[in-house]
Amino acid sequence: MAERMIVVGGDAAGMSAASQARRRRDRADLEIVAFERGHFTSYSACGIPYWISGLVPERDQLVARTPDAFRDDFDIDVRMRHEVTAIDLDRREVVARDLDGDREVRVGFDTLVYATGARPVQPEWTRDDVAGVFGVQTLDDGAALLDWLEREPRPRHAVVVGGGYVGVEMAEALVQRGLSVQLVEQAAQPMSTVDPDMGELVAEAMRGTGIGIRTGMEVTGLQERDGRIAAVLTTEGPIPADVVVLGLGVRPNTALGEAAGLPIGPSGGIRVDRRMRVPGVPGVWAAGDCVETLHRVSGMPVHVPLGTHANKQGRVIGINIGGGYATFPGVIGTAVTKVCELEVGRTGLRERDATDAGFEFVTVLAESTNRAGYYPGAQQMTVKLIAERPSGRLLGAQIVGRSEAAKRIDALAVALWNGMTVDEMTALDLGYAPPYAPVWDPVLIAARKAVDALAGTGR
Amino acid sequence: MAERMIVVGGDAAGMSAASQARRRRDRADLEIVAFERGHFTSYSACGIPYWISGLVPERDQLVARTPDAFRDDFDIDVRMRHEVTAIDLDRREVVARDLDGDREVRVGFDTLVYATGARPVQPEWTRDDVAGVFGVQTLDDGAALLDWLEREPRPRHAVVVGGGYVGVEMAEALVQRGLSVQLVEQAAQPMSTVDPDMGELVAEAMRGTGIGIRTGMEVTGLQERDGRIAAVLTTEGPIPADVVVLGLGVRPNTALGEAAGLPIGPSGGIRVDRRMRVPGVPGVWAAGDCVETLHRVSGMPVHVPLGTHANKQGRVIGINIGGGYATFPGVIGTAVTKVCELEVGRTGLRERDATDAGFEFVTVLAESTNRAGYYPGAQQMTVKLIAERPSGRLLGAQIVGRSEAAKRIDALAVALWNGMTVDEMTALDLGYAPPYAPVWDPVLIAARKAVDALAGTGR
Repeated sequence: MAERMIVVGGDAAGMSAASQARRRRDRADLEIVAFERGHFTSYSACGIPYWISGLVPERDQLVARTPDAFRDDFDIDVRMRHEVTAIDLDRREVVARDLDGDREVRVGFDTLVYATGARPVQPEWTRDDVAGVFGVQTLDDGAALLDWLEREPRPRHAVVVGGGYVGVEMAEALVQRGLSVQLVEQAAQPMSTVDPDMGELVAEAMRGTGIGIRTGMEVTGLQERDGRIAAVLTTEGPIPADVVVLGLGVRPNTALGEAAGLPIGPSGGIRVDRRMRVPGVPGVWAAGDCVETLHRVSGMPVHVPLGTHANKQGRVIGINIGGGYATFPGVIGTAVTKVCELEVGRTGLRERDATDAGFEFVTVLAESTNRAGYYPGAQQMTVKLIAERPSGRLLGAQIVGRSEAAKRIDALAVALWNGMTVDEMTALDLGYAPPYAPVWDPVLIAARKAVDALAGTGR
Repeated sequence: MAERMIVVGGDAAGMSAASQARRRRDRADLEIVAFERGHFTSYSACGIPYWISGLVPERDQLVARTPDAFRDDFDIDVRMRHEVTAIDLDRREVVARDLDGDREVRVGFDTLVYATGARPVQPEWTRDDVAGVFGVQTLDDGAALLDWLEREPRPRHAVVVGGGYVGVEMAEALVQRGLSVQLVEQAAQPMSTVDPDMGELVAEAMRGTGIGIRTGMEVTGLQERDGRIAAVLTTEGPIPADVVVLGLGVRPNTALGEAAGLPIGPSGGIRVDRRMRVPGVPGVWAAGDCVETLHRVSGMPVHVPLGTHANKQGRVIGINIGGGYATFPGVIGTAVTKVCELEVGRTGLRERDATDAGFEFVTVLAESTNRAGYYPGAQQMTVKLIAERPSGRLLGAQIVGRSEAAKRIDALAVALWNGMTVDEMTALDLGYAPPYAPVWDPVLIAARKAVDALAGTGR
């Protein structure tokens, strides 16, 4: 009889695991059942801001693979609108509720992949009886927001709560739709995913497009009129709003797993080993936004909800369940984003992370251009490096530029991944041609500057 | 009395050495004399095609630093239009001729930096008495070509001889000026700096802009009319031309050094050690297009004339002469170029290089896009990887794409530099966001494909 693999959660991590396992083992050998409580499998949540802005016209463009494609191409028994309500590790079965039929099914498993993703942080002041407040985690969230934006009376004043990637991207999307937008952020500045000196460049660009940035204040409540949002109340007074978007981040969605006894790590995610097995729970694997993972620079467990990690982790599980061998070696915190015509990249530790991890370090900022200075369209680019003192080992890097800037973080990410020192980096053989870089590449200029800073010469 | 450092050749390598040494030692301690036979110091030869095309309007935009700037800012005794005609190692002095005054001077040195650059390969069929045939190595070359292009009768039919970087860039520049252009290349295809499968993509793009590509033929002579070029003769017949541009590559300019007894390596360049000293010749250093350098992947000495290496090597010399410690660890053959709206990047070994070096390997081609497929402006990108069998170690990589493609080679270059295997690379934490990459980055897709190829599964 075929072994049965059950996948809980049909998005990036779970469906990568399923399809990768199927590539290695056929139906007679491995039956695969995937439960997804929503309406979609494998969609790009990261693409939602571009759908809201109108840049991506159709919702279905964000769906990488439909349930039918998984059924037809991978012979996976995908059960949509089925919410797993319990995992019974002793009996090795799951209990799932068919949300449309309101029936309950019990299905046994040999291996289980826990891939329930993350849930948005929901502030206490939201109220079910007041319309016009939206999260943007799922395609259903996006559809609800779009519907609100397009229905009369059309909203004109938006407040975005939270200045992380999603908040910043949503603020831009709403400006592009013609709304006036206020971004409310508790910290001293938005884009705290980079250090304040780099984040200020981003804040400036946002202000330049008309986004109002209200930092150092907290939303404490809301005002409604006829059941519709009218304003958010903050520690600095009310801000009128006829639509509110929440971008307060997400937390690992672990409740189901916790109830079943899966171990939770210090970051709040499900614990996993290098092969993405849940330690101490034979036959159970976990991946994606619900797990914690090793940060290779700090050595600490972290929760980094990002589709690219979910896909890789799912693939690792699929290879292992498929009979192969694969490990997920952790992350280094690489991320890129586009904000109001600025490109932002980061990898490794920020200054505050480096301090928290106990490192001593130097930081340098290098101003350069994306092309040779004389080549048309050359644009300014700022590269920041953080290097351990006295070893010179790279700990983190950030880039902000106007064009062709963000993906340059990849070269720095690979250098960081390999534990290079800034001194070694000054010799790196990077691509040079006038349309792409000055003769001293911005990355090399920054590395040289870091070497000087370590030597205390600063020259 | 101050030590005296003499620099022979006032371009990237020599002047980097000079200015870096000056940063560390002042005039009272180190006198620096630089001889340059031409009219310019530190200019961007790589920028000449863009000056010819009109993209860069002014010659002086290509000059990074003038002789006066070196004199005033770095206290370097720059002697322009002075050609060093002999190096006397026993007496430790150089003989230099003032090309304008026609005087000879003798100047003693304690340390000598040999940085004479490269000379263009000059085919036998060129004739001094026929006007209209140009190299494009120096600003003077560029000025002469521009003058010819702008003078009546205006040339309309150009032949570019040689399909390397310079030939390809010049062909495009001349098309942009409105000339009809034929590119003649001895090999089966232009852009042999990448493998034929990738080069064909480039050839196609060139044909698309109207450049005639004549491969597998050799230029054997020329036809003139009234002392002006009228046609080039090839093994496949004549091609009419009223202007000819030579792009046959360069050779290390070693004659002066050879005469003085400096050792020449198998690649034809001056031999140097890791600190850029000429071995066996105390006090003599060499850098830039005249030296050979270690290829870190093949382990062989190679001649790679490129401004970025010249600058780095010069800096290494300057640090060492300045009393510090620095080494140049070699190159891995990274290069990028823009050809007719295609972006091309390469690093490491091509298939033929890998074969020559004795490696066994697999190759994979991965088609992907520079952005998420649904994000506006997504363009195709082809990534090729060459990986050693069975180790999986990356040996080389090439990228061709329409937009935001070329500099992605840097991440692969850093991976190659660090000796990563394609298996390790599948886990790399590269930047992901819809405007910059699909959720599986093109580099990661290629790495996965290479892993499959090594396993023989090809899935």
